[in-house]
Amino acid sequence: LSKGKSTSTSFGVFLLQMGWGDLGVFGEPSKETPNLDQMASEGMLFLDFYTASPLCSPSRAALLTGRLPIRNGFYTTNAHARNAYTPQDIVGGIPDSELLLPELLKKAGYINKIIGKWHLGHRPQFHPLKHGFDEWFGSPNCHFGPYDNRALPNIPVYRDWEMIGRYYEDFKIDLKTGEANLTQIYLQEALDFISRQQASQQPFFLYWAIDATHAPVYASKHFLGTSQRGLYGDAVREIDDSIGKILKHLQKLGISENTFVFFTSDNGAALISAPKQGGSNGRFLCGKQTTFEGGMREPAIAWWPGHIPAGGVSHQLGNVMDLFTTGLALAGLQPPSDRQIDGIDLLPAILQGRLIDRPIFYYRGNEMMAVRVGLYKAHYWTWSNSWEEYGKGIDFCPGQNVSGVTTHTQEEHTTLPLLFHLGRDPGEKYPLSFASAEYQEAMERISGVVQQHKGTMVPGEPQLNVCDKAIMNWSPPGCEKLGKCLKPPESDPKKCFWPH
Amino acid sequence: LSKGKSTSTSFGVFLLQMGWGDLGVFGEPSKETPNLDQMASEGMLFLDFYTASPLCSPSRAALLTGRLPIRNGFYTTNAHARNAYTPQDIVGGIPDSELLLPELLKKAGYINKIIGKWHLGHRPQFHPLKHGFDEWFGSPNCHFGPYDNRALPNIPVYRDWEMIGRYYEDFKIDLKTGEANLTQIYLQEALDFISRQQASQQPFFLYWAIDATHAPVYASKHFLGTSQRGLYGDAVREIDDSIGKILKHLQKLGISENTFVFFTSDNGAALISAPKQGGSNGRFLCGKQTTFEGGMREPAIAWWPGHIPAGGVSHQLGNVMDLFTTGLALAGLQPPSDRQIDGIDLLPAILQGRLIDRPIFYYRGNEMMAVRVGLYKAHYWTWSNSWEEYGKGIDFCPGQNVSGVTTHTQEEHTTLPLLFHLGRDPGEKYPLSFASAEYQEAMERISGVVQQHKGTMVPGEPQLNVCDKAIMNWSPPGCEKLGKCLKPPESDPKKCFWPH
Repeated sequence: LSKGKSTSTSFGVFLLQMGWGDLGVFGEPSKETPNLDQMASEGMLFLDFYTASPLCSPSRAALLTGRLPIRNGFYTTNAHARNAYTPQDIVGGIPDSELLLPELLKKAGYINKIIGKWHLGHRPQFHPLKHGFDEWFGSPNCHFGPYDNRALPNIPVYRDWEMIGRYYEDFKIDLKTGEANLTQIYLQEALDFISRQQASQQPFFLYWAIDATHAPVYASKHFLGTSQRGLYGDAVREIDDSIGKILKHLQKLGISENTFVFFTSDNGAALISAPKQGGSNGRFLCGKQTTFEGGMREPAIAWWPGHIPAGGVSHQLGNVMDLFTTGLALAGLQPPSDRQIDGIDLLPAILQGRLIDRPIFYYRGNEMMAVRVGLYKAHYWTWSNSWEEYGKGIDFCPGQNVSGVTTHTQEEHTTLPLLFHLGRDPGEKYPLSFASAEYQEAMERISGVVQQHKGTMVPGEPQLNVCDKAIMNWSPPGCEKLGKCLKPPESDPKKCFWPH
Repeated sequence: LSKGKSTSTSFGVFLLQMGWGDLGVFGEPSKETPNLDQMASEGMLFLDFYTASPLCSPSRAALLTGRLPIRNGFYTTNAHARNAYTPQDIVGGIPDSELLLPELLKKAGYINKIIGKWHLGHRPQFHPLKHGFDEWFGSPNCHFGPYDNRALPNIPVYRDWEMIGRYYEDFKIDLKTGEANLTQIYLQEALDFISRQQASQQPFFLYWAIDATHAPVYASKHFLGTSQRGLYGDAVREIDDSIGKILKHLQKLGISENTFVFFTSDNGAALISAPKQGGSNGRFLCGKQTTFEGGMREPAIAWWPGHIPAGGVSHQLGNVMDLFTTGLALAGLQPPSDRQIDGIDLLPAILQGRLIDRPIFYYRGNEMMAVRVGLYKAHYWTWSNSWEEYGKGIDFCPGQNVSGVTTHTQEEHTTLPLLFHLGRDPGEKYPLSFASAEYQEAMERISGVVQQHKGTMVPGEPQLNVCDKAIMNWSPPGCEKLGKCLKPPESDPKKCFWPH
């Protein structure tokens, strides 16, 4: 392993929680993301980029391990095809056996920082600084709350090893006005970290994984009310502004040509929160929680001045897992050879315009729901959500209803998958006729890919099966100094309930 | 009237039949319109631009007269709220009393040409050269067919005063492969016209209103099979390529700084033709034929190098009728003062960034269905299409269904309009609560606008009520020379049937 210091390329990942349709450059009708649009015009736009799961925790685990959630354990077997994540009563987290991108980069001399939501488990053994990160500013879970610290503790905010406060108590979020200055804090953390690494000529990995667009959505005072799109748009504007400032900072410090930056999202916009707290998946079907395009196709931009030709557009099928392999490649490292890695190195696609033929798998929990090969997408299972949940007003496809596709029962199509051509029909509205020659030809190719995938799949131990109120964030490290330790209840481990 | 010659600004209008979501710059997921995207990056993008009707003929009449179809006669009273157009058995057409943009520009010394589909009536009195155009290459009606020349004649193609052939006979369209070289002919016509005007230092108005993306969709051999989007995408690519060539031609001739060019569309993409022959309205609701955003919000770009700052984005509420008034302004002319003109001069919005407060009215035939004021849109009537037509498989909102909004009966909401905030909810999925303060405040403002509009509305004589097979394109002028005159049947005028 080469300790490249200043000759190594630093790596920045902006991992947001936004939909494909939330950026001007992807067609948002208010065009309120001038900085991201400029990032695209100076870099390369990925139009066929995916996340590894329609939910945040598994996607984040996949990004950092380069492996599908079914391999790295970020799924549940409590029920068939259920999305699961890491609420604060989750017992599991990222297994020690997984190799994370920062762990590997560290060996190549990188300094690694995560800013924002970790979401790979909040118990001590899952702490990001135990998995390769050198610094952390942020929280282990979503910023839900406020809680009463009796039934549920408020979510802690960490600086490195220890908590420095809790959401709603020390880090205010006004649910009424939507005001919170957290994005400003996260921005400052990023600028400071970059300045320090530049000063010491240190290659770094910065993982900026903030959550202002995740319900409850927030923005700081300066941005409140500035968007045509309401509070969600205010949050987007603040994120856009922050990203612009970070990129300008890299340029000002003279290290932009030595820093590869990637922007993407961990799942499609949550349409259940729309329109006030939910974003847009453009013309794609449904949203977060589903394996339709709206749930997993993501906005994506690669930026590396002097290396990536400005204004490029790539149709390379990409996935957040590729950031693992690409990050290693930037550091001159090979991916681990002792395990299956699903991510590919995107640099040939980005720098030489080579298109790498690879499928995209759409998992929901323990089930491969769909697969994309080329422009064809075959659904082996369809499900939006259950009639029971739908009856309660929970709708992952509001205003959209494609007969036999956005089903409210889990429909199996494994013998005759529903096939869509995503070029002619990106909205997944017109299944191809089973009798057509096009269907036969496309499915022949896809079947081979699926057989190969399923035949060699070794699922990891599922981490998201057991929940226990005793292991919540009652007494995180550092709570003593702050007088913020809370008494946990008795341990009572149970199967977690995952309705979707 | 000043006969400005070379000092006057020429005016080019590209009027296509494409949806908001068909351009890369508006978020089309394949990004196959590099020339239009470049036109936008060199000019100004309009994000809130509308057509005057969800159907082509009335929109085209509105564009050229600067007046709503209800005023200029391009509507029907045969039934309530029905879209009507100019098939070849239509008896009516553009009334002589209407003043068209080319008529007025002619007086200021402009040479005017229409290339493509006229659609303002095909009988002799409606001929474009009788309404201000100096040249015409194209057809009076859509390129439907082929017909047998017995029950129905094939549609003629005109050069200036006379027909020079008919579609499918002399101008081939291969419905099986989708091949036709018409766009190439229309491109050449445009380049030649521009060259001639430049040579004689003549200000001109070029109205390039071609119809390759209108079913039956076609493209020339070079473009067939080149799009990820199928035949429709091939047609879009050819149009995009042609527009790029026309703009480059203006630059090469050194007259781009003296030519204001506007790109837009006459109705939303026809979703009944999707996915093979239908385009995309992005994230907007429904398509052509409807007064939802998908039916009437249009892509729009203004281009005028040296005058319009590059890369601008405008939220000015615009309408195709504004091209009338803007065209006059470019020629230093005032709009006629003896009639109500609905179009506004967009130059202050384009050149000085001034936002002009004006409403957008959404008409379907004789009914004002909806109105937009600021970011609010109020639906006074909702209708997608009838249950009867829907039962036949005719769907203007495929895959979309917003309860109580995309209704299959004509629903009156005049006492309590359905209100949407198009910033937060451009897809018209979440009506505001009638009880909210926001509803009350917005409707107060909108009600005043509607009262004013309805109180002063003087509808023109409806032109689209009567159909007669005897007046079809049996024997257009010039048919004798070609031996292409056909014998008309006996006259049998009837009320036209407009199902939508």
